[in-house]
This record gives sequence, C-alpha cells and structure tokens, in this order.
Amino acid sequence: MSLIVILKPGSTDETIDRVCGRIRELGLAPHIARGDLRTVIGAFGDEAVLKQDKLEQIDGVESVTPITKPYKLASRDFHAADTVIEVRNVKIGGSHAAIIAGPCAIESRDLLFEVAGWVKKAGAAILRGGAFKPRTSPYAFQGMGFDGLKLLREAGDEFDMPVITEVIDSRDVSRVADYTDILQVGARNMQNYHLLMEVGRTDKPVFLKRGLSATVQELLMSAEYVMSEGNHRVILCERGIRTFETSTRFTLDIAAVPVLRRECHLPVYVDPSHAAGKRDFVADLARAGLAAGAHGVIVEVHTNPDKALCDGPQALLPVEFTTLMQQLQHIATVCGKSLS
Amino acid sequence: MSLIVILKPGSTDETIDRVCGRIRELGLAPHIARGDLRTVIGAFGDEAVLKQDKLEQIDGVESVTPITKPYKLASRDFHAADTVIEVRNVKIGGSHAAIIAGPCAIESRDLLFEVAGWVKKAGAAILRGGAFKPRTSPYAFQGMGFDGLKLLREAGDEFDMPVITEVIDSRDVSRVADYTDILQVGARNMQNYHLLMEVGRTDKPVFLKRGLSATVQELLMSAEYVMSEGNHRVILCERGIRTFETSTRFTLDIAAVPVLRRECHLPVYVDPSHAAGKRDFVADLARAGLAAGAHGVIVEVHTNPDKALCDGPQALLPVEFTTLMQQLQHIATVCGKSLS
Amino acid sequence: MSLIVILKPGSTDETIDRVCGRIRELGLAPHIARGDLRTVIGAFGDEAVLKQDKLEQIDGVESVTPITKPYKLASRDFHAADTVIEVRNVKIGGSHAAIIAGPCAIESRDLLFEVAGWVKKAGAAILRGGAFKPRTSPYAFQGMGFDGLKLLREAGDEFDMPVITEVIDSRDVSRVADYTDILQVGARNMQNYHLLMEVGRTDKPVFLKRGLSATVQELLMSAEYVMSEGNHRVILCERGIRTFETSTRFTLDIAAVPVLRRECHLPVYVDPSHAAGKRDFVADLARAGLAAGAHGVIVEVHTNPDKALCDGPQALLPVEFTTLMQQLQHIATVCGKSLS
Amino acid sequence: MSLIVILKPGSTDETIDRVCGRIRELGLAPHIARGDLRTVIGAFGDEAVLKQDKLEQIDGVESVTPITKPYKLASRDFHAADTVIEVRNVKIGGSHAAIIAGPCAIESRDLLFEVAGWVKKAGAAILRGGAFKPRTSPYAFQGMGFDGLKLLREAGDEFDMPVITEVIDSRDVSRVADYTDILQVGARNMQNYHLLMEVGRTDKPVFLKRGLSATVQELLMSAEYVMSEGNHRVILCERGIRTFETSTRFTLDIAAVPVLRRECHLPVYVDPSHAAGKRDFVADLARAGLAAGAHGVIVEVHTNPDKALCDGPQALLPVEFTTLMQQLQHIATVCGKSLS
Repeated sequence: MSLIVILKPGSTDETIDRVCGRIRELGLAPHIARGDLRTVIGAFGDEAVLKQDKLEQIDGVESVTPITKPYKLASRDFHAADTVIEVRNVKIGGSHAAIIAGPCAIESRDLLFEVAGWVKKAGAAILRGGAFKPRTSPYAFQGMGFDGLKLLREAGDEFDMPVITEVIDSRDVSRVADYTDILQVGARNMQNYHLLMEVGRTDKPVFLKRGLSATVQELLMSAEYVMSEGNHRVILCERGIRTFETSTRFTLDIAAVPVLRRECHLPVYVDPSHAAGKRDFVADLARAGLAAGAHGVIVEVHTNPDKALCDGPQALLPVEFTTLMQQLQHIATVCGKSLS
Repeated sequence: MSLIVILKPGSTDETIDRVCGRIRELGLAPHIARGDLRTVIGAFGDEAVLKQDKLEQIDGVESVTPITKPYKLASRDFHAADTVIEVRNVKIGGSHAAIIAGPCAIESRDLLFEVAGWVKKAGAAILRGGAFKPRTSPYAFQGMGFDGLKLLREAGDEFDMPVITEVIDSRDVSRVADYTDILQVGARNMQNYHLLMEVGRTDKPVFLKRGLSATVQELLMSAEYVMSEGNHRVILCERGIRTFETSTRFTLDIAAVPVLRRECHLPVYVDPSHAAGKRDFVADLARAGLAAGAHGVIVEVHTNPDKALCDGPQALLPVEFTTLMQQLQHIATVCGKSLS
Repeated sequence: MSLIVILKPGSTDETIDRVCGRIRELGLAPHIARGDLRTVIGAFGDEAVLKQDKLEQIDGVESVTPITKPYKLASRDFHAADTVIEVRNVKIGGSHAAIIAGPCAIESRDLLFEVAGWVKKAGAAILRGGAFKPRTSPYAFQGMGFDGLKLLREAGDEFDMPVITEVIDSRDVSRVADYTDILQVGARNMQNYHLLMEVGRTDKPVFLKRGLSATVQELLMSAEYVMSEGNHRVILCERGIRTFETSTRFTLDIAAVPVLRRECHLPVYVDPSHAAGKRDFVADLARAGLAAGAHGVIVEVHTNPDKALCDGPQALLPVEFTTLMQQLQHIATVCGKSLS
Repeated sequence: MSLIVILKPGSTDETIDRVCGRIRELGLAPHIARGDLRTVIGAFGDEAVLKQDKLEQIDGVESVTPITKPYKLASRDFHAADTVIEVRNVKIGGSHAAIIAGPCAIESRDLLFEVAGWVKKAGAAILRGGAFKPRTSPYAFQGMGFDGLKLLREAGDEFDMPVITEVIDSRDVSRVADYTDILQVGARNMQNYHLLMEVGRTDKPVFLKRGLSATVQELLMSAEYVMSEGNHRVILCERGIRTFETSTRFTLDIAAVPVLRRECHLPVYVDPSHAAGKRDFVADLARAGLAAGAHGVIVEVHTNPDKALCDGPQALLPVEFTTLMQQLQHIATVCGKSLS
C-alpha cells in the first residue's frame, strides 16, 4: 500500500518541501510528480504508518488516497473517471474514439502525402509514420530519421491531422518532440525505463505499446514510470503478445482492452496491423478491437505494399481502409462512442 | 499432397471397392469417408503418382481434387463455399449466426428451466448445459450425468431450442447422442482421437473446441478426424489459449476467427465465458468475437452465479445477457450476418 | 483444506463403512481409495468441521492428516518420503534412477528386437515401444495395435526388461495392462479423466506425461485422479511445453523437475526426445534432466531413423545412446542416485 | 543470402574503400565491421549478383563466405570454431567454463566485499553486481549507480576477479565501461538496438541476456547488432522465457543452450537465479545448465537474502553456493570442460 498525496493547485516549492519533510518524519519515502496543473506526492513505506493517515491535515494538501495496486497514478483508485486527452482538437478517451492511420515507415514525401490524403479522406483522425524503425536485423532499413520526421510534420500540417511517431533513443526525445504531436514508445522499449522517464518529462501525450511478453500489469507499471515524471497523458496500446500460435505474427490479446479499461483511466488502443502481420486479418481485428471497448485502432496503410520498405504484408490498401472505417463507425456507436 | 476423390451420389459398395482397388493398384493408400449423401475417398501416397491423376476417369467418380494442406475435408480447397449447418430449424454458418446460451452445468431442473426461459426470451437460439464436467480436481462436482441430460432434452423441447452438451467418454457417445442435438467435444479432449472418431460416426453436428495449447492447424486436423469418419457437420470454437497473461483465465485468440474462416468452410464460434473466466469481460469478448467474423458465441448464463456448482464467476446474469444480445444484433448486421 | 484418513492395514469393509458413516455424520463427503496395502479415505467439506478433527479416535483409523494443497495423495504433506516403485526388479524413485529406451513406435519384430538388444547392452533398464500412436493427422500411421503389444511383451521377456507402452482409449486399458508392465498416459490425454480413472483401477504403475499446456499443478491433479482410484504407483514425466520458441519441437521445462520433487513424493522423469524433436539436442537435454534431479529419462532410439514410421528425426542412433548412457552414469552419481 | 568479405590483417582505409567501392559497383550494399585484428565487410543485395562471387579476387581480400542465415558474424558459417574470450586471465568458451557469482545489486561496500570473499573462496571466477537496476516499479530501489560501480571495481581488484555489471542507458556506456571488465545487457534491453550499437563500439566483452519473449534467432540477431559494430566478443545468456507456467518466475529454456551452441560460435551461459526466482531450484537449474553444455552460469549469492534490496528470494546462501560449485566441477568434466 502507499498514499497518493495531491497538493492544491499552484502549490509552491516551499509547500512541496514541507509535505515531503513531514512524510520523511513519519519514516516514509516521498516521490514527487510535478504535473502541469498540480503536484502529486507518493508516500511509500511501512503499512502501519501509512494507515494512520496523518497527511491530510498538512497545509497545502488537497487530498490523500491510499492505493493498494502496484500502479498508483494509472489506477482507477487514483482517478475514477476516464481520462480524455486532447491533441490539436482531436479527443481521445471516454466516449471519444479516434482512428490513427498511415504508412509503417516514412519512405518518401510522395508516398507519405499520398497515403495521408487517402486516410484523411476515409476518416482517420491522426496520421502515423515511423522515422526510426527498430529492426530485428542490423542490415535492414532503419528509417529516414530526422529527415523523415520533417516530412511527417509537413504532412500533418498539410492535412490538418495531429501526427504520431516512435522515439527509440532517450537521447532523441526532445528533438523528436519538436516535430510530433504524440510520442510513441514501441513494444521493444516498453521496459526501457530511462526512455519512459524521458518522455515523461515532455508535455506531449505518450502512446505506449505493450511489450511482446509484458503482462497487463507490467504495461500499467510502465505507464506509471511516465506518469511519475509528471506527464499524465498516456495512451495504452495492445499490439499482440508472443504465444505458440504462428498463423498470425502475434496473438492479439483482445481481453486486455476491457481489463485495462477496468483497471485504469487512460485511453486504450489496439494495433491490428502488427498483431496480424497479414493484411487479410487486419480489418477483422480492428473491428474486434473497437467492439471490445477500445478508444481507437492504429492501422498501417500503404498504396503499394509490395514495395514497402517495412512490414508491407500487413498494410491495408486505401480502399480496404475506407471500407473498414465505415464498419468502425457503426461499431463505435454500438459501444457508446463517437469517432473524431 | 493427396487426392480427394468424390464419388457420385448413391454410389454402391461395389463402386467404392472398385475405386479403392484402383487406388491401391497405383501404389496409393485409400481412406474412405462415407457421408450421408456421398462417399469421399482420400488417396494418399507418392507425390509423383498422385500428380498423374488417373482417377478421374474411373466409373462412379464425380471429381478429384488435389489438396496440399494437411487438412483435406476441412479445407477450402475441398469445399470453397461456407458450410451451413441446420439443426432443428436453426441455421449456423455462412450469413447465418446463432447465439448459444445456458448454464455451465445442469444443476437442477428448476435452475435449468429458469435460465432457459431467460435466454430464450433474450434471443438465444440454442440451449447449452453440461451433464459431464471434466474437472481439474477429482474431488470437484463432476456433473449430473444422464439424469442431467434428460433434463436438458426436456428443457430444449419445452422452449423449442436445439440443445448442446459435452461428451467426454468414447463409450458414452451414442447414448449422449440420443438426447442432444449437437455433440460438444471440449478443449481437453480436442486431441482425444478415439472420441473424435466416435462422434464422427454419429449423425449429430459436432461442436469442437480448440485445445488450450492447440494451434489453429491442429484444431483443423482434429476436425479432419471427425470428418474423415463421414460426419462433415463440424462447428469450430475458439475458447482461449494458454499464455503468460493471468488477468483473464485464458487468452482469447480472436485472430483465430478470421484465420479459420479463410482456411476452412466450417462455421466458427467464440466462447467468451471460458476465455475471460470473469463476468466483467464476457460481453466485451462476445462483441469482439462477432465483430471478428464469428458465426456465433456460446455464453454461460446463471441466475445465481454465487451459488453455481461450476464456473460461477464467469456466468452472465440474465439482465447482462439481454443487453449483450441487443449489441450482438447490431454487430452481426455490420458483419453481414443475421442472427437466428 | 481436507482431511486424509488412513486406515490401519487390513481394514475390513465394515471398518470402511463405519468411518465413512462418521464422516457423513459430520456433514463431510468421504472419498475412498483402496490401495494394495491400506485404504485411504479423503474427507472433504466445511473447513470449520474439518478443523475439529474428530476422526482420529475412530476405531480402525491409523492417522488423520490435514492437507491444504489441491492435490492430496500426491502431496508431500500426505507422504513425506520419496515413493520408490519396483517393477520386475527395477527400482524407480528416491535414490534409484532408471533409463527407459526403445523405438517410438513398434514397427516390426525385427526392428524392435534389434533396438531392444542395443539399448539393453548400453544399460537401459526398461524398454519402451508404442503400439497405439496418437497422431495429429487421421491419415498418419496409427500404430500396430495389439499385434505390436504382443511383440513388445516378447521383447521384454527375451531381454529381461520391464516394458512400457501408451494406452489411449479407456476401453482398452485392461487388455493393454495384460501385456505391459507400466501403462503410459500421453500428454494429449493428461486431462482425459475417464482414462486416468481406468488406469487408476489397475495394479500397474502409471507413467503420466505432462500435457503440452498443463501447469505443474494440473499434472499433480491428474496424478491425483489416478491415485484417488487406489493406484498410488504413479511416475510423472516432463516432456516439454508449448511456448513461442520454435527451434525445438517443445520447450523442456527443466525446472518442473525440482518443483515436482519438492511438491510431491512420486518419481519424476524427463522425455528429452519429444521435447527436442531433433536428434542433435536429445543427449544435452537428457543430461540436463538427470542433473536437475530426475529419476530417469525416456529416450527414443532407432537403428534407421530415416525410415522410422514415427518421429524419426528425434531418435538417437544406438551409438549415440551408448555414449549418452556413460555420461548419465556420472551425472546420476553427482546427484546422489544410482542407475539400475 | 549475403557475402561476408574478410580482409587481410592490417588492411588500410584505402583497401576498405576500394572493396566497398567494388561492392557498390556490383549493386550491393557494403556493411563495414572493423574488428581488433581484421576488418569484415558484409555485402548485401540481389541474390543473383551475390552468387557470381566476384569479390574474392580483389586485392586485400582474404576470403569471401556466403551466409544464408539472417545472423552472419554470429553464425558458425562465418566462424566454425568456438570463440574463446579472455578477460583478465579468465577464459570463457570452447573447453573453458567459468562461474559468475555475486549479489544481485550492489547495496553497500560491506555486503559486496563479504559476498565477493565467499564466492571467490568457493571457486567463482568472475564477480557480478548490479549498479543500475531496471525495476518494474518506478518506486522500487533503482541501484546505487556510479557509486556502486566504484565499489564493484574495488572488490574486483581486491579479490582479483574480473567484474561484470549491467548498463541500461546508451548515454552511460562509456562511463560504465571505464569500471567494468564485462558489460551486461539485460533481458529487457535485448532489443534496445541503440544500446547494442553503443556496447558494440567498446572494447569490452558484452554479456547479452535473452529477452523474456525473444526467440533464439532474435537473440542471435541482437548479438549481430553488437558484432556488426566491430565488437566480436559477445557472450550469450539464457535466463528464462515467459510461458504460462507460474511455479517458477520464468521458464528456463534449457534447450536454447545446445541450439545456440550449434548455430553460433559464441560462449553460452545460463542464469538459473532469474529463471527460478526461488532459491530452492537455483542449484538444480545451474547443474542442468552446465550438463546441457553451457560455458558457465551466473548465480546470485547473498549473505542475508531476507534483507536484500533486490531479488532476495532467489539468492543462494554462501554455503549453498559452495556445495553447488563442487557439483558443477564434476559436471563440467563430464561435458569435457574445465572450470577456470
């Protein structure tokens, strides 16, 4: 168990020091998370002391919440209502769903703008595109890097869509944040804790993908790493886990959607493209994701998948994506959500 | 590779002998599957011989199909169109979806009839109820046996619903088939090949659940065991696989639905109750199943789950099931299916 | 929790009835297990009643043991010392290790006798050979059946080795038991509870293989099914579980050996052949099995693996097996065991 | 397929440029790996061109090897003999085995020196100790950082043992390399490709742990990332994978040892402590690891595990470690290795 001490808005350094001092006097360890609006301090330590709950009376403290789950800030115990994240007028979370689409990798200006035009027209709200690609082989295409990022920013501005891209190195976080609206942390980096802490120090929403072999609880603990640095705008994404089944690239753990939604207040997405690994099954998994209660899906679309430099076999063609969008619209309604 | 030789309808024993004789002359091994309407003979053996394809001219042979997949009769190569199974006026397969619901175990006449009334009213097409329960512990409730089966038959007749129940012992197959409309083979028996062969010799549709650690291909091979005995009316069911994730009882492999639908012509179901193991997530998984293209879901419903003798925590309350049925109706429509 | 009531040796039916009657009077359910030497009665029910522990004074009762684990008779709480099973002068368990070897399937008298001669000479204690082969495909070789069994019995007698073979159908148990010294239940039948109960009613030791996706606890629960029918001579076998790794056929869960040895008193084996699926790795896994504390390994050996009708790629050549036996001798010594 | 072009020792930049130029002229992409002794250039591209194999005649080229495996420099095709890595007089690889032991985390000077004294006396060759601990929870002890590293260096010098420690941030690599003899990359960072590239640019041996859900092939691809930067001194470590089994913390994939040894020339280790997660099973798994052909094990030892700041339950007591070392000595001999 631990206590989450929420300070009143606009609390000064002096208040923070005072509360932390009091926490230490009680023999507990304070953990400070300075958010945009308010500062939150976790108090960890001896259960008997925590139960006495003497922190509420301290001047400057708004409330004190005991939390038994290992994830604190991510827990519904800490924040009961759904978190809604707004990014350039697109809302994500609660009753707001939004579809993210685009090419796996940014390969060229032409391709990116062509795909962006298609997905915008079909109804996608956010544009995706990878500039830094973590590849299993050191000899495979590793992405266009910052040149690609500039193109993504251009395309987002041109088509009036927020953009999302992956950051894979803690040294690059602030530079990548200059170009993108949402920072993606990929599955292979879900437990790269220094990277999580770096994105937690930015003011950009973080799209956090579940690791291939991470439990739902570990995903929430990774979200907690980001949030404990002060950035509470985290979006969780189920993208398939490693199992014995080989007919798809990974096994989409569709139940993770309702489990995450019950346990935590953050928006939850599904990535049907990486889970399936094969175009034929992407639309089915996307519909399933929304039907299970997700706030959106992130889908790879390519106009010429056979020539794609990365993950072509799992990219939808624009016409397939357009049909899918119509079905997703209906399913969102059945599930009480509206698509941005 | 192997050849599937389909005989003309009404072929006599003499024809079958003649075709098998010819197959043996070619150095191949024949495998006879006598179906209700026609007999199918598989010819297995040396690829070079198979390629000569001399069997089509034999008198009595309607067609010869080469099949490279390890599953033959279950394959789309053998039967391109969706198989539609009709049982007491309920259609399953193709554009026909049907919901199966009822208690996990038959516990008493009162409970069974009460639940049957609820699920019928809510729109379920088929009534489920277990009389023989395979339990992990030898000391747990093992089901009411044949007394339970009689109650299930009564309830089916009373509420005008076909019934489905599990058979777990090859010695019981014909007796169980006397009472039920659909024979279920459970996950733990998916590779109990003698049981598969026994149900393959009945004229009742077989509802075959995927084993906890079976691949999609192994599920199809088990269907092949049933079909190779002459019973082509098999329904496949994804019910969750064993993975490292523990927040649900099993991990529903939702992608198995489109994979199975692409590979084979048989109807495909999803069991959200056993996959989730927790009531809270059952409706979400049921919606996801239908959205992914399933022909139906099999759901456990109980009026007093806390007192259930088996799997109470995963049973929906009647009111929850009623709400779910309304959502499923909409999702079936989005996916081009109509609910019986 | 439950109580295990052990009756004094030579207890009469009258005594058993009296004890069961008393158990029922207390509101508990009795479960009778008649062993060769003594009868054991489990008392299951309300924890409060169980704690009163009034059963010890009943005439004819030797002792009463409360057991909290879900497995009772298999538990170290019930039987603290290692169980040693003796079959035709070969001892298995405790400080006694014994190697089982032979062909996967019995294919012919010649092959069986040739392999038996080799493995006997190399130091194997027990001869294996499959007569009923559970195969994924209905079109694959299914074994020689009872004709094969007779050959196995002959070979065992000729080379003075106890024999082990798999039984896959509950209808065949007593007939198979007429020929074999040890009854094997395969991985795919580990939760075929009726089969477990049938072998539990014989007087032959049961070699129980862990299912592909069974937990260690479920393996113990399956042993409990056998033991609760009165047959306490069960040998457990780890043979690889299903995981995402594909470089071997299954993933040998080597840690299951010490886990099983701590939890239960039964002998523990390892099957390196099915786990590896490839000859190259069999000897390494066999050595690892013994080093981890197993009482033996069961290894497939074939004189002409390329022509084997079943699982040829995983069979050791006689010369490889001979080298392995020498290494196993040393490792057994390091681990405080002697090879029969 | 690709070609591995090995240059003669002492090749100049001019030679490298010339070979790369020729590779590009053929329409292939060159990949330069400058090693200590010689430079290796990979040529990737069109298979037809690669088959012409015109590179061997170029001046300065020693040999050209075509490699079909996705891992090249790590493959036995590239380097047939076992690689032996020497670090401060301790040899690892081939017929040389060496045990690594020490506390999970460096907690204090006293503890570290106490444990180091014990493990040295028992026969361990290399001292381990974590200064940067990747923890699931942001609120858990994260290690002593560089202060801890200095203590580790001191202890290594005092007891004349090479030391190994984990590096988790690409920004820290060169600073950590100043203190340690071997750089460890942990399981959670196995696919942190930028970190792999950084350690690949140092001259310290890299101890690379398999990811929780990484296949053996992916582990080799990660080794390839390190090697393709010029550092060919990589040690691979199996430390347990994620499966459904929960009786141990992870499932030690013991078969990975012989698989890795067949596929690649690098030394292979086993980590029984993290795999087991429980002290009771560590010695069994350590013996199994060496028996399966590993070049060593890495074991956590603590004098007061109940008070350990990290992973206490899996640490061996010094007396247990001493007994284990004696058994490992014997098993190494059985497997044709000598312990440093």
